[in-house]
Amino acid sequence: MSILIAVADSSAPWITSFSKALQAELPEQKLVFLGEPFDRRAVSHAIAWKQPAGSLANLPALEAVFSMGAGVDFLMQDSRLPDVPVFRVSQDDLTFRMSEYVVMHCLMHLRDQRRFDRQQAAKLWNDDKEPPLASEVRIGLMGLGVLGRDAASKLKVMGFDVAAWSRTRKTEQDIPVFAGGDELDAFLARTDILVALIPLTNETRGILNRNLFEKLAPDGALGGPILINVGRGGLQVESDILSALNDGVLKAATLDVFEIEPLPQTSPLWSHPAISISPHNSATSEPKATARYIAGQFRRFEEGKEVCGFVDRIRGY
Amino acid sequence: MSILIAVADSSAPWITSFSKALQAELPEQKLVFLGEPFDRRAVSHAIAWKQPAGSLANLPALEAVFSMGAGVDFLMQDSRLPDVPVFRVSQDDLTFRMSEYVVMHCLMHLRDQRRFDRQQAAKLWNDDKEPPLASEVRIGLMGLGVLGRDAASKLKVMGFDVAAWSRTRKTEQDIPVFAGGDELDAFLARTDILVALIPLTNETRGILNRNLFEKLAPDGALGGPILINVGRGGLQVESDILSALNDGVLKAATLDVFEIEPLPQTSPLWSHPAISISPHNSATSEPKATARYIAGQFRRFEEGKEVCGFVDRIRGY
Repeated sequence: MSILIAVADSSAPWITSFSKALQAELPEQKLVFLGEPFDRRAVSHAIAWKQPAGSLANLPALEAVFSMGAGVDFLMQDSRLPDVPVFRVSQDDLTFRMSEYVVMHCLMHLRDQRRFDRQQAAKLWNDDKEPPLASEVRIGLMGLGVLGRDAASKLKVMGFDVAAWSRTRKTEQDIPVFAGGDELDAFLARTDILVALIPLTNETRGILNRNLFEKLAPDGALGGPILINVGRGGLQVESDILSALNDGVLKAATLDVFEIEPLPQTSPLWSHPAISISPHNSATSEPKATARYIAGQFRRFEEGKEVCGFVDRIRGY
Repeated sequence: MSILIAVADSSAPWITSFSKALQAELPEQKLVFLGEPFDRRAVSHAIAWKQPAGSLANLPALEAVFSMGAGVDFLMQDSRLPDVPVFRVSQDDLTFRMSEYVVMHCLMHLRDQRRFDRQQAAKLWNDDKEPPLASEVRIGLMGLGVLGRDAASKLKVMGFDVAAWSRTRKTEQDIPVFAGGDELDAFLARTDILVALIPLTNETRGILNRNLFEKLAPDGALGGPILINVGRGGLQVESDILSALNDGVLKAATLDVFEIEPLPQTSPLWSHPAISISPHNSATSEPKATARYIAGQFRRFEEGKEVCGFVDRIRGY
């Protein structure tokens, strides 16, 4: 039997490094690659990242699919995905990475770091405007999975006023949690910095649109609402972000993900003064650590033990 | 009796706001101001910030001096300061403010934020270099007072490998603490990001110099040592910072304080690509909160109770 590495480009450096580390972890397993000849009947497991749609069909012996990351939207959107268990990465390193990014950008908005960048470029010494205290700034985490919970606890340590919105009711002791569609508006109305950490599903596609931005708190301590999207580009309507920034519905945006990635050179997002852009690296995974993690999932699956990161196909994540 | 507000410019907006709030807190006290006529014999207390040297002399009824901030170097350097108790601000807000700044800039160095700023300006999508984990980056806090301890605990929450150096032996349970001159070199040798949070005294003036930079870890996960100075400008030798950056002894520097403030327009620090500059605002205090705090110190002093922030004149802070 063999493990199929199902990616668009098997020769990418990350994939090469990952595959080498995975082979070292699982020396008795045979790895095969999309784009090279292999026996479809012998594939018992697939490890996938943005594979061409349909490439996991016609694998009669397939028992499980592992995503190389926390996201599984590219699997859920593949209508020919076989009906086998799907697992995603749910790794401390990835979680901590995401929290580093979220805490850093929330602090940069709190402390108006872009103003001081501009002042330095102009050789201007000006400290006349006192930033609000972190406790005066209300952060709204949209999504309260593993990533959202870690970010919430760290933002609280930094002094922010943190709440979250979740699709389903959750019992958190530390922060107010709004649940479901009924409570979304109330959540948005108390949010100065919206951090999108939700998965991309049919329900959430395009949810970060003008209608939603207009429900954010207009009168908060930062002088206007701020969007941080670290989820998926498909959550956001980029033309709405631009228009909302241009007429003051949003004050600023930090975007790590985009409708099309890499973000095209022609996109007006690149040069908008109120937008900070990063190349979808808020929580990138290190190939060797990911290989170790998936090898562990594989072994537990083979031994019939419970495997972390099981994906609910109906929910979509 | 009266309280003297001893500052260089009594008409500055911060001072006006502070004085108004202080008067509201202490309605029975008479406030007098340097630069306006007042009876020197009637001054029982002074509240000072960078007062002209000697302006607190010849106040025969003076009982105590309160600094408007955490620093007292401008008082300790005034050779005509009367021999009365001196108190400084030791306020949660100020402490949290400082930790926001320190955590934000440590994360910006960890995540190479300046690289992504440059890439955005060039419309360049490039995520090829994985940053190290926070746990691989060794932060060295120079100074472990109230500010240093709060920053240390928050940096630990973010996952950094934190140690501290202190003038005197301290018992911290959470982080390794190096003490005194004997252990300074060992502290520097395990430091990737040096955060200077020490007071300015005769012993520490110019301590951030080339000799010290050369003792920092040259081979850390960030590719070279980084300096963050949020203490006082007098701690640093700016010509040494520039030369150390230019020949790779330092990789980058974040400076909130300077030898001369405001930083002169002619300073080469402004435009150095590896330096981030802010206008001494890492932990600025809000005038009303500061007035409330000092009014509380004043009342406790009057009632003969213990007052927070007592300054050891021999130690100098």
